[in-house]
Amino acid sequence: MPLPSGELDFIDRIRARAAPGSGVVLGIGDDCAIVRPGGAAEDWLYTTDLLIEGTHFLRTTHTAADAGWKADARGLSDVAAMGGTPRFCLLSLAIGDGVDARWVDGFYRGLLSLAEASGAALIGGDVARDAHVICDIVVAGTVPRGKALRRDGARAGDAIYVSGELGGSALGLATGRGKAWARHKRPQPRLALGRFLREKLHATSAMDLSDGLSLDLRRLCLASHLQAEIAAPPLFPGATLEQALHGGEDYELLFTLSARTRAPQDFEGLPLTRIGTMRKGSPGAVLLDGAPLPALGYDHLRRL
Amino acid sequence: MPLPSGELDFIDRIRARAAPGSGVVLGIGDDCAIVRPGGAAEDWLYTTDLLIEGTHFLRTTHTAADAGWKADARGLSDVAAMGGTPRFCLLSLAIGDGVDARWVDGFYRGLLSLAEASGAALIGGDVARDAHVICDIVVAGTVPRGKALRRDGARAGDAIYVSGELGGSALGLATGRGKAWARHKRPQPRLALGRFLREKLHATSAMDLSDGLSLDLRRLCLASHLQAEIAAPPLFPGATLEQALHGGEDYELLFTLSARTRAPQDFEGLPLTRIGTMRKGSPGAVLLDGAPLPALGYDHLRRL
Repeated sequence: MPLPSGELDFIDRIRARAAPGSGVVLGIGDDCAIVRPGGAAEDWLYTTDLLIEGTHFLRTTHTAADAGWKADARGLSDVAAMGGTPRFCLLSLAIGDGVDARWVDGFYRGLLSLAEASGAALIGGDVARDAHVICDIVVAGTVPRGKALRRDGARAGDAIYVSGELGGSALGLATGRGKAWARHKRPQPRLALGRFLREKLHATSAMDLSDGLSLDLRRLCLASHLQAEIAAPPLFPGATLEQALHGGEDYELLFTLSARTRAPQDFEGLPLTRIGTMRKGSPGAVLLDGAPLPALGYDHLRRL
Repeated sequence: MPLPSGELDFIDRIRARAAPGSGVVLGIGDDCAIVRPGGAAEDWLYTTDLLIEGTHFLRTTHTAADAGWKADARGLSDVAAMGGTPRFCLLSLAIGDGVDARWVDGFYRGLLSLAEASGAALIGGDVARDAHVICDIVVAGTVPRGKALRRDGARAGDAIYVSGELGGSALGLATGRGKAWARHKRPQPRLALGRFLREKLHATSAMDLSDGLSLDLRRLCLASHLQAEIAAPPLFPGATLEQALHGGEDYELLFTLSARTRAPQDFEGLPLTRIGTMRKGSPGAVLLDGAPLPALGYDHLRRL
């Protein structure tokens, strides 16, 4: 019995079997789960992200601090996508063969520098050994009750936006040089932008671009039961259109705004670019300049 | 630069560098971290535990459902140790080479059967691929404000107890047969007992026995700045004293009661056995029948 054909199928399969929990506002399938603690003033967001040596980083090309930074950035980016404020994190770390105390110190230095800057204190975790380094970051954040930005809120006619320029991480991975490589190694979770989208622009939906625009926009369209019609997104300097459409790990935000909302051209210097419009049609379909765009972004379960 | 000489040193090292967070009642170093959400009626507990193929289970001897059960049991046991009520869980899963959909279905079936029986709905996670199966379970639970059972609350003169009989998991791992093997494969998190200890016996401290009595009791003594004087604990039928003292993964509860507290001999059929007394002395020391007991329990970082 082969595995389901991709992460979307896999997640649907798990979701169908998991019972709903009391106080759970949103379960499996978005950037974070949303929980409403009894009596609490805010909703709580929870996300967990694996970072695996050989898949997400290499010890030969990434410093220990780069790996620690990236582990935390992956979780923080999910909280950013929901417009949340990070509150704490936990880290499970399997220490790989040949890893010494210098490496571990560097890893925690990178992780803690970003964690503390974001306000998410490291409050727990687990440690074990394995052949290579594997870590799982848990990040918790908060949003005002009922205000989390979700993937399923887009409406027909909403404008589709992305922050920044896309393809930089894929370009950096391909070349190992320059600003693109720095972008790949040290992604910046868009926390301030996420809060701005929630508070000021009242974004109707949002998610982070972790697996590539083509795949992530498909996910947003599926969640909102709509299709998307887009033009080419802004390109990171030197990146190809392919890298911008299908390259993962840009960690920019993808979001939708009501047609009545006037968005600024940038947020604190970060460009906000309209790339298209949500439409009724085939749920999950993405059209680039009118032609179907295959969802070729990074899918952990497709490469079997 | 070698790694610190064991988990205790390692965790101290991380704890010294992690900044405290607002609303964080207890950070790194106990079974769970404790967080007090603004306005919430209860404190929230968070724990995360790795389960690694080759370390914690084998695909050749454990069914997929056994592995899923054990992953969840490890996290639930930490919530039990604090007297908490499980509320939800998240699972990060790296799918190993050769794993098919039948295995994944079995894994989730085992995990969800225990999760749902415990009241902890699965509400999110992450999925990736790796050479072998690695998973990280996050469990969240609740306790009334300020009432979590912790490792650092024992006082000199308190009586030391364990639940159940020890060494069964180590015996099962050694023999692969009988009730001991069943115990190893399907540990039972002592959730009802943990709540009973908190509500009715007002235990002064508690933790779960995941790495062996000798090492776990040392941890409790270090946290409470006391030493422990014990006699031999009750043995699982067929287990040796060595297995009961140093074998891991029994997932029974270790706890202390005020000398004035009268404990029943059992809780719902599970024996509660006094094994010793907390004393002033050398913090962290454990004496068995008057002789120092080395902390030979399972330490992931000592085997270097």
